[in-house]
Amino acid sequence: MSLEGRFDDGVVRVGSDARQRYHDSRGYGYPLEGNEIALAPVEAAHLLYRGDLEAVVDAASGERLGFREFIAREPGEDFGVRFLVYADLRSRGFYLSPAAEPWVPNPPSGEADFAVFPRGKGPRDGEIAYALRIIGERTDIPAAELREGVLAVVDEESEITYFEIGQRDPTGTSGADITLPENCEADLLADRVVVWEPPLSLYEQTFYGQPLEGREYDEPTLQCSLLEATYLAERGALALEASTVRERGREVEGERFDRRLTVYTELRERGVVPKTGYKFGADFRTYADVESVENLGHSELLVRVHPAAYVFEPRDLALDVRLAHGVRKTMVFALVESNGSDGDAGIEWWSLERLTP
Amino acid sequence: MSLEGRFDDGVVRVGSDARQRYHDSRGYGYPLEGNEIALAPVEAAHLLYRGDLEAVVDAASGERLGFREFIAREPGEDFGVRFLVYADLRSRGFYLSPAAEPWVPNPPSGEADFAVFPRGKGPRDGEIAYALRIIGERTDIPAAELREGVLAVVDEESEITYFEIGQRDPTGTSGADITLPENCEADLLADRVVVWEPPLSLYEQTFYGQPLEGREYDEPTLQCSLLEATYLAERGALALEASTVRERGREVEGERFDRRLTVYTELRERGVVPKTGYKFGADFRTYADVESVENLGHSELLVRVHPAAYVFEPRDLALDVRLAHGVRKTMVFALVESNGSDGDAGIEWWSLERLTP
Repeated sequence: MSLEGRFDDGVVRVGSDARQRYHDSRGYGYPLEGNEIALAPVEAAHLLYRGDLEAVVDAASGERLGFREFIAREPGEDFGVRFLVYADLRSRGFYLSPAAEPWVPNPPSGEADFAVFPRGKGPRDGEIAYALRIIGERTDIPAAELREGVLAVVDEESEITYFEIGQRDPTGTSGADITLPENCEADLLADRVVVWEPPLSLYEQTFYGQPLEGREYDEPTLQCSLLEATYLAERGALALEASTVRERGREVEGERFDRRLTVYTELRERGVVPKTGYKFGADFRTYADVESVENLGHSELLVRVHPAAYVFEPRDLALDVRLAHGVRKTMVFALVESNGSDGDAGIEWWSLERLTP
Repeated sequence: MSLEGRFDDGVVRVGSDARQRYHDSRGYGYPLEGNEIALAPVEAAHLLYRGDLEAVVDAASGERLGFREFIAREPGEDFGVRFLVYADLRSRGFYLSPAAEPWVPNPPSGEADFAVFPRGKGPRDGEIAYALRIIGERTDIPAAELREGVLAVVDEESEITYFEIGQRDPTGTSGADITLPENCEADLLADRVVVWEPPLSLYEQTFYGQPLEGREYDEPTLQCSLLEATYLAERGALALEASTVRERGREVEGERFDRRLTVYTELRERGVVPKTGYKFGADFRTYADVESVENLGHSELLVRVHPAAYVFEPRDLALDVRLAHGVRKTMVFALVESNGSDGDAGIEWWSLERLTP
């Protein structure tokens, strides 16, 4: 015989042997006195949807609601998308509870919607696999709200994409024991710099610039980006004023240039070689362990630079992460917190990867 | 013996047997009286770079300029990026001339920089393979400037990406001889619509909506996007007011919704089925010949919708085209020219594809 619930002030109470049937054995709701349990609307909707709960009676109106009538009321914020993800993870064999007491004793912090338990575990086993946040594809996410965990995005046709979000500090061993040359002859062109016949190692070992092909030199002449040239000029490697090159960068790129220079510099200092990510629509692709350009190997990360106050659109996340996945790289967002005009800045590194629960 | 040129009011004149050596046999410049020719600065730079021209004398200052001194002056707008692409295509065995008289008799219209000739042909053969436009990765392109031809983008590290731009009108045979059902029961939720047990054909044959899985129905219940639901309601297929659904779309998506609805409707009218392109970061993926969802096959296009006045950033183009290429689809931009409040609108369809010259 299947039961009825009573919808009153945000939860659905179910009596009789509900505790054993729904909570103990299948992880729905939280126990009240005796065998009664309380269900979040999304849990009640799922039991209605499965036919396990026959109806829910609205305490206020006395109406008897089936699945259709219940979800048509959209009980609770973002009910539609939260129900779709809840049902999807249930159908994949996972139990999950609202990320709040009393459903779970120690709810995850941040904007989490659900606590997802390890496969085969439930709310009473005291283990949480990850915090899950759920949004519709039209809901923007401020970068400041990124947390370790999983983000589920429900698109306009109700398909779900899962992203695993983690902190990712890039480190490497590139150029560790190599000293840069001094005062190489260079010309500043409109938006790039030509370095005339620098020592071969500048390209071969530390992977700065791009050789100008097809002409005879003792050493190859290199074209450098304004970022590379500013970094090199600041370290005395070029016969150019660092400030002049940096100014040119700001002229052609605006404030974005300083943000990117901050990240470029930090990556170099960490032994990671950043090269342009233009072909992937990113700011940089990175190489962690460059010994020589001959044996370069595969670049590991795609890095996109944003100000710390940036707000992501889910569609852009889908695009970046999908592309990175397609070229076997990891998408990393570098969020630059500028501490005023001295250019001193802090960086947060977040990786996003597609996940199949 | 190698020659010298004379740089005077925008062109470099070379005498002696220059016409036969550089123009007739290798497609540089245009002929003047006798054996003299005139070279565009980029052509002169290339001959200097190759060592074929020994120096260029600046008529004004009398200075004798080698390759380094000549390019350091950046003779002409965007000289750096134009030189890089000119040299790249030359190294690939193509001849090209500035897209202007007297270099070529009938220069291509629009913003073209060069006329590229078919392999083995030159400026005197009266054939143009394509018009080439060249920009740096930081130069935005107004949608209104898109033309049939090739766009070369030079990134900050001087690597070049070529895009083939073409007009692409989507057409198909989907749903041609199928009539829609009438007044199906439906509920409007926050940002989607649930259609309760419509005829199976609505999903199976015309591919509207997404079945709500895991529950027993005579017919599957469908979740539709607000676009699908508006389109269906406008045709009397749903028991919902089209205006109500459209209003909701505008609430959750703003003006973007009407643009996307215009394109969605036009695609359906052309026998093409648009489904969400969210997972690819696009507005739609499209299926030209849907007979049944069982044998759906591969979607051919990714469509991104923009207003006609949109301005593209090259980096976004690189991202879209790269992703589309990676999933074996063609990227198409639908530019919507709104003709005022009546929602009547014209659409231009442009495809961009990666090209290796």
